[in-house]
Amino acid sequence: MAKPKSGPMDTIVSLCKRRGFVFPASEIYGGIGNTYDYGPLGVELLRHVKDAWWSRVVTSREDVVGLDSAIIQNPQTWVTSGHVGGFSDPMVDCKKCKSRFRADKLDDARCPEKPSKQPGQCEGELTEPREFNLMFKTNLGAVESTSSVAYLRPETAQGIFLNFKNVLESARIKPPFGIAQIGKSFRNEITPGNFVFRTREFEQAEMEFFVPPDEEQKWYDFWRKARFDWYVEMGIRPEKLRMREHDKEELAHYSTATADIEYEYPFGWGELEGIACRTDFDLKRHSEASGKDLVYFDPQTKEHYTPYVIEPAGGINRMALTFLIDAYEEEELEKDTRVVLRFHPEIAPITCAIFPLVKKDGMPEKAKEVEKLLRRARMSVFYDEAGAIGRRYRRQDEVGTPYCVTVDGDTLESDVVTVRDRDSMEQEKVKISELPTYLLEKMDGWKRQ
Amino acid sequence: MAKPKSGPMDTIVSLCKRRGFVFPASEIYGGIGNTYDYGPLGVELLRHVKDAWWSRVVTSREDVVGLDSAIIQNPQTWVTSGHVGGFSDPMVDCKKCKSRFRADKLDDARCPEKPSKQPGQCEGELTEPREFNLMFKTNLGAVESTSSVAYLRPETAQGIFLNFKNVLESARIKPPFGIAQIGKSFRNEITPGNFVFRTREFEQAEMEFFVPPDEEQKWYDFWRKARFDWYVEMGIRPEKLRMREHDKEELAHYSTATADIEYEYPFGWGELEGIACRTDFDLKRHSEASGKDLVYFDPQTKEHYTPYVIEPAGGINRMALTFLIDAYEEEELEKDTRVVLRFHPEIAPITCAIFPLVKKDGMPEKAKEVEKLLRRARMSVFYDEAGAIGRRYRRQDEVGTPYCVTVDGDTLESDVVTVRDRDSMEQEKVKISELPTYLLEKMDGWKRQ
Repeated sequence: MAKPKSGPMDTIVSLCKRRGFVFPASEIYGGIGNTYDYGPLGVELLRHVKDAWWSRVVTSREDVVGLDSAIIQNPQTWVTSGHVGGFSDPMVDCKKCKSRFRADKLDDARCPEKPSKQPGQCEGELTEPREFNLMFKTNLGAVESTSSVAYLRPETAQGIFLNFKNVLESARIKPPFGIAQIGKSFRNEITPGNFVFRTREFEQAEMEFFVPPDEEQKWYDFWRKARFDWYVEMGIRPEKLRMREHDKEELAHYSTATADIEYEYPFGWGELEGIACRTDFDLKRHSEASGKDLVYFDPQTKEHYTPYVIEPAGGINRMALTFLIDAYEEEELEKDTRVVLRFHPEIAPITCAIFPLVKKDGMPEKAKEVEKLLRRARMSVFYDEAGAIGRRYRRQDEVGTPYCVTVDGDTLESDVVTVRDRDSMEQEKVKISELPTYLLEKMDGWKRQ
Repeated sequence: MAKPKSGPMDTIVSLCKRRGFVFPASEIYGGIGNTYDYGPLGVELLRHVKDAWWSRVVTSREDVVGLDSAIIQNPQTWVTSGHVGGFSDPMVDCKKCKSRFRADKLDDARCPEKPSKQPGQCEGELTEPREFNLMFKTNLGAVESTSSVAYLRPETAQGIFLNFKNVLESARIKPPFGIAQIGKSFRNEITPGNFVFRTREFEQAEMEFFVPPDEEQKWYDFWRKARFDWYVEMGIRPEKLRMREHDKEELAHYSTATADIEYEYPFGWGELEGIACRTDFDLKRHSEASGKDLVYFDPQTKEHYTPYVIEPAGGINRMALTFLIDAYEEEELEKDTRVVLRFHPEIAPITCAIFPLVKKDGMPEKAKEVEKLLRRARMSVFYDEAGAIGRRYRRQDEVGTPYCVTVDGDTLESDVVTVRDRDSMEQEKVKISELPTYLLEKMDGWKRQ
């Protein structure tokens, strides 16, 4: 078998559009910056990535609970967190054409009047850099006044800190414990890009893990490893992943240590997820600013302390993109080449496709019975009766469906279906009554080939 | 058994806070209008309501696919849809204290200086009513200019219309078919209220069902019944539900018929979900404004037509609130009263609680094995070993957990656990190996008592 090669970004973007993973947003109106909508397969991919993250980080653990806080919080939240004062990029304006550019990314920018030049290299003179805040501003209530200014959250983490005491009091839980959240965050990026890698709105998946101060290092080690291992278990090729510790200069002022899990994208190494030691910075700041006690009292040791925080934080859209890029292979077969997405069965948009071999002899009816059976077992299924069976297999390979079940003459006679495996392309005969268990066991035992 | 009575709103609000369903947002900073965060149990309730809706409306149907479009779309979207011009409330200002009120809701408003009076009944004179748009405005990019104005979507529906052609071309589907979406929408309501019934940001669940024009009535009838029946199947008491057809004056200008599924809340009858005939209005308007062809060509009849649309639209938060209110009962028992939430097992935050009878003799270890078994069967489980078994049952009743599994002496001897049913309070002995199937069958067969 020839060595499979990974496709570059444009192949992925085109596959995404053609098969209904990702569409440019507002396309009929010429789009809107680097914004995207997720189509029928994309939304199932996102749902499965979210479910897989939630299951691993929250519901499978006794020491982590979930939260879903509002996007628009009291603006004091962002004053305290430092986002109103410090969450900004340095920008320069062209005095001639009035365009604005990131001062630290001028090399990547182009003069709108002479696209062969960088801003400032043609006629226009650039202003000194000024700071522009990355938070989206809006106004609450009918009146536009400074007193009604509100912000779209730039991270979900602060909603967690605000609810530290509420969760502690209602959930009968104590440090070390975590509060996790998946939800939209918004950043007014000047240079979003690389498809869905960096967009102005994105689905964030964050967890704040509160620990006794002297357990910071232990849990930092634990979560770095746990999060890295998760990507490998979910099928990402380990040689495409690396862990990069931030050096002193790179660390946020409140952080004692931060590491990025990086992936080698077609456009270079980029951050997939960050794991940060946030110390007691956020809880202490919110406690000071609000006058509310955000200290934990340990009834066993009789100690009062502000927990330290370890935060694994990633973006669901970026995870989905990474899974897509990494899963993509063009495999040379004897007679032709097939495109296959080697998704982990847990995140594949469709878990099982069901085909009647032909559109007659009662096969479609039988196939729909099988479909119903698998739906009852809570599987994502897809019924397809159009075209030759070989073409139907290839269509499912291209969207990463791990299993195809075909109803044929044998099925009508003896209730046996053919299960075709996406990765090995091998076929096996399975009794319908044993099909759900057979597929669940295959899913559990899946490994990237 | 005495007749159970429903609790009023304040009982629900207090239960929600105490047990971690819903907290006031930004509470440590004095809150922010009528905004709420969902705690550990609330987020699981929301997830299960979303999953139940998605499963019923999307994945269990061959004729409906999903979508996840961006919150911030090209602003032309909202010009075309009519929201920039027409999505507004009439407001009046008090000339004395500068407060603003909804002109059509003055009866419910209070003068900030004399709360016993309505605005305008004390000293202040009110201005003539003026229209204020309900869309949240923000600016894209670093420059605040009119050309960069963008809106937070007030409904998810328009993101679906924009992608009509993209979905048609990528998903190999044809009318009658639906595109469904769950996601945040934002409305700058002047008078949000009634807890999470009306909030400025909310999770919308909408489906646009595209049909040949002459099938409009048929599918309107179908979806009204399907959506009403779903609430009954999910356990809502039928006597608390009614279907209300809008009369001519009440209809939106583009709608030929609309019906509300209403629920009798403690504060009166209110809209739970709307089912609207939107005709071909949206697709035609977007086609005219964008110059893009949004017509469907039927290859069989050789006809070109713009599909008509039937739209079931509800809010996930309002659904969750309704399930909570309706599930709440205070049941008089022989010796005391128990609070029980009679949730459908599909939406209960916890499906199964697992208790070791005592914290010794290897029971906790055995209970954790059972916990693991049920997690593998993808159930939401919760382990609790604190306090008397009776108190543990009551704690689970209060948050609506349908099944409690206790590991006792029998379990250690013969691998048999005790399953206690929330509604009947009856207990049954079940073999551990048969537990997942036993529980799944009980869930499938559940009916509101």
